Amino acid sequence: MLPFKTLIKIDRSSTEAVFKQIASELVLLIQKGMLSPGMELPSARVLATVLGVHRKTIMAAYNDLIAEDWIISQERKGYRVSESLPILKPRTYGNKVRSSYTAKSQILFDKLEHVPLLTKASSNCKVTINDGFPDVNIFPFNEYKRLLSQQTLKKASRSWNLDGSQFFKKVLTSFLNETRGLNIEDENLMVTRGAQMAIYIASSLIIKPGDKVLVTAPSYFLANAIFRQLGAQLITVPVDNDGADVDAIEDVLVNNHIKLLYIIPHHHHPTTVTLSSARRAKLLELIKRHKLSVIEDDYDYDFQYQYSPYVPLASGAHHGRIIYIGSLTKVLGSNFRLGYMISTPDFLHSAIKLKTLIDLRSDVLMEEIIAMLIQSGEFSRFITKANKLYGHRCNYAADLISAELNHVVEFIKPQGGMALWLKFNENYQLANVINKSAALGLQFSGRTYPKGQDLSYDAVRFGFASLNEQEIDFAVDALKRSTLRK
Amino acid sequence: MLPFKTLIKIDRSSTEAVFKQIASELVLLIQKGMLSPGMELPSARVLATVLGVHRKTIMAAYNDLIAEDWIISQERKGYRVSESLPILKPRTYGNKVRSSYTAKSQILFDKLEHVPLLTKASSNCKVTINDGFPDVNIFPFNEYKRLLSQQTLKKASRSWNLDGSQFFKKVLTSFLNETRGLNIEDENLMVTRGAQMAIYIASSLIIKPGDKVLVTAPSYFLANAIFRQLGAQLITVPVDNDGADVDAIEDVLVNNHIKLLYIIPHHHHPTTVTLSSARRAKLLELIKRHKLSVIEDDYDYDFQYQYSPYVPLASGAHHGRIIYIGSLTKVLGSNFRLGYMISTPDFLHSAIKLKTLIDLRSDVLMEEIIAMLIQSGEFSRFITKANKLYGHRCNYAADLISAELNHVVEFIKPQGGMALWLKFNENYQLANVINKSAALGLQFSGRTYPKGQDLSYDAVRFGFASLNEQEIDFAVDALKRSTLRK
Repeated sequence: MLPFKTLIKIDRSSTEAVFKQIASELVLLIQKGMLSPGMELPSARVLATVLGVHRKTIMAAYNDLIAEDWIISQERKGYRVSESLPILKPRTYGNKVRSSYTAKSQILFDKLEHVPLLTKASSNCKVTINDGFPDVNIFPFNEYKRLLSQQTLKKASRSWNLDGSQFFKKVLTSFLNETRGLNIEDENLMVTRGAQMAIYIASSLIIKPGDKVLVTAPSYFLANAIFRQLGAQLITVPVDNDGADVDAIEDVLVNNHIKLLYIIPHHHHPTTVTLSSARRAKLLELIKRHKLSVIEDDYDYDFQYQYSPYVPLASGAHHGRIIYIGSLTKVLGSNFRLGYMISTPDFLHSAIKLKTLIDLRSDVLMEEIIAMLIQSGEFSRFITKANKLYGHRCNYAADLISAELNHVVEFIKPQGGMALWLKFNENYQLANVINKSAALGLQFSGRTYPKGQDLSYDAVRFGFASLNEQEIDFAVDALKRSTLRK
Repeated sequence: MLPFKTLIKIDRSSTEAVFKQIASELVLLIQKGMLSPGMELPSARVLATVLGVHRKTIMAAYNDLIAEDWIISQERKGYRVSESLPILKPRTYGNKVRSSYTAKSQILFDKLEHVPLLTKASSNCKVTINDGFPDVNIFPFNEYKRLLSQQTLKKASRSWNLDGSQFFKKVLTSFLNETRGLNIEDENLMVTRGAQMAIYIASSLIIKPGDKVLVTAPSYFLANAIFRQLGAQLITVPVDNDGADVDAIEDVLVNNHIKLLYIIPHHHHPTTVTLSSARRAKLLELIKRHKLSVIEDDYDYDFQYQYSPYVPLASGAHHGRIIYIGSLTKVLGSNFRLGYMISTPDFLHSAIKLKTLIDLRSDVLMEEIIAMLIQSGEFSRFITKANKLYGHRCNYAADLISAELNHVVEFIKPQGGMALWLKFNENYQLANVINKSAALGLQFSGRTYPKGQDLSYDAVRFGFASLNEQEIDFAVDALKRSTLRK
């Protein structure tokens, strides 16, 4: 309820009747837009108490307003502001109001304009292919709910610390050491809302406007957007079937002062390739020789299907130069956002302060439940189960696309991750295929990669992890029908 | 488990026995720190399968390592890396390792160094006085859990949009219109993790290094930290019992180009004063005349005890110049972080993009549950209940402090909010009082406000909302005993 006692002023020394004064004030509130069309008014009894007048005074005011069509009275529903008011309500924050404050970064952001960050599902959409997200349906949500039901808010509230639940930090540190050979301690770990926030914070602390940042072309577009937003100049190196071209990185390092290298060694985004063993060794050598600062984005390390996985670059010898960023969201599904940054204690000291300015307090309740899942082994068992399922879906999708779309797309089956990188044959235009597929009920919800600056071919990520066999069948069939010659 | 298949290299053409090779490789992993002291090793059977050798080969390797004290074998617990290793394990991210990347903003952050952002509870701590947080125990958590138990991850996942749950946005828009007279639509609202994130995003979009930002002295220190972090110059105006000194604001505006005014009209942080009606009217006039951009931080509008509350400045006439920021966390308790920013659609267009770079995806699961609580009326009923309780605690604390600490502190009972602003009489030094209280089991967990740049007196916020009567009794008694003359 609005604070009517403050909003409605009654002058008891006035010659105008009190009910008339109240009616006038209410009309003023409607005209100002504070009482908007359809909004419920307090009952006469309640308003009378608030204003310190008799109930009949309010009834008289309401009756006047009903007579003038400002408000309506409905059986059992009380009084409401009329939906069809004779006046145009003013909107302080209307579409045509230009704010006097303007976003300084409009230009930088506009580089993202072409990116379909969000596609609304069309009404006939039957299957949506995402960018490579986990299957939200397989997460042991019932176990999560069971653990939550045992939690008390007091307990969660007590275990809070500026950098989140200390119990979670301890458990996550062990988990990362045991799965990635990282050899870190609690003080090397900062928990964030997701890998995205970790990339944002690390970059914000390192990059000054004009700094050169080295990335692959193409690279994860929302990391590039952060670097541009911070005023960095992007220097690019190619990426091929063995991952980032490390010789090209060496050339760039010799001729430029590079402030930061951003690299995704496992299942590179968007191309899904994994950095080869030889290139890893050389890159570690370059990092040492050039005292290079690096962000290693290892967002889906936990999903490796075909081969024995590599440990992260960060587990090699790099003298603390690699900021290692990862995510639990790829395990937990998109409803639970948890990421982390691993670095030296001195850097994390600043990082935790910046995080405080951005996101005062983490979700301790969730962190503690995830910690319990990790500690009980449930988390690792779930990763094993999910790997089996996604590995199967990866094979299924790859085999079907090879068989059915051989003439249309080219791809290399990835060693892990949640998406295939489909490169379209030059006879097929991506925009065309997407439009035709949409008409058949198949939608792409992620960014598309048209031929251009970064790419010599049209491409799209085909997220298979969240699709069952029937959905993959449907998707491949729709793509096939969209690429039929007439 | 580590990816031993990749980490352990076996050369079958070597003259060295395979079990010896495996043992050497394991020692190397221990020396590198990938296998850390106490870490569990896979069983001989599992490792044999991974490496494609006979189980007895692994047994032989393990036995060699046990003989050399590298690993230990425990009945039923399997093999572990020895806790007391003869070597010093190297730590890539050790404390003495200085990162080659340094936080550019170190200097700015260091202004925060004196701020006790976090106090660890000492062992004898019986009562903690916070900065003014809600009582986490009164939130209807069981109802929350009940609603969560009905949720499916698929549903939450489907209702996702780049700016969160559309259902929640719709419900929150109505709630804000109905309680604050805001007259906004969905497109004027952006949901964030908390008010802090909203302040960070709005400021980041507006402030360029060197810009002048107008704040009260003192003001909310984590907002000031954001402005400094962005390179702003802070211009200050005093705050008295009627809130910010609006005449001083006028003087500053006449003589300076002010990029942004940051103001907290309700229960100003830290001083708890509310901006008077006359000053509100004048400020709105100044905003119009000087085309001033404003952040109105209205973090605890929902908690007003004594008087009929004012609506926000943002509900007045300001032609979209006021960015209105609020929080639901003060209602829900610190375990549920939800804030929002209200502005024009064009500004929010940029704000949502920046939010995407920082925090890709909001917590749709929580948002949908809170939306249900708002829609069912439970949320408003809870606010009424909490207001009654906190209003009572406010009276209780104010009366007791007046009676018992009259000679020590001065304060004005606030019209709402969750804290008292205790100004210490000059005969009592804050640092002294805090130390003595701590020895008695009373701790202050928030920032303290020592006499200095912004203040002519020592002060502290006494968060009463989360304390019951016994705890308030204890706190006041401890303060009294800490300030006894000897």
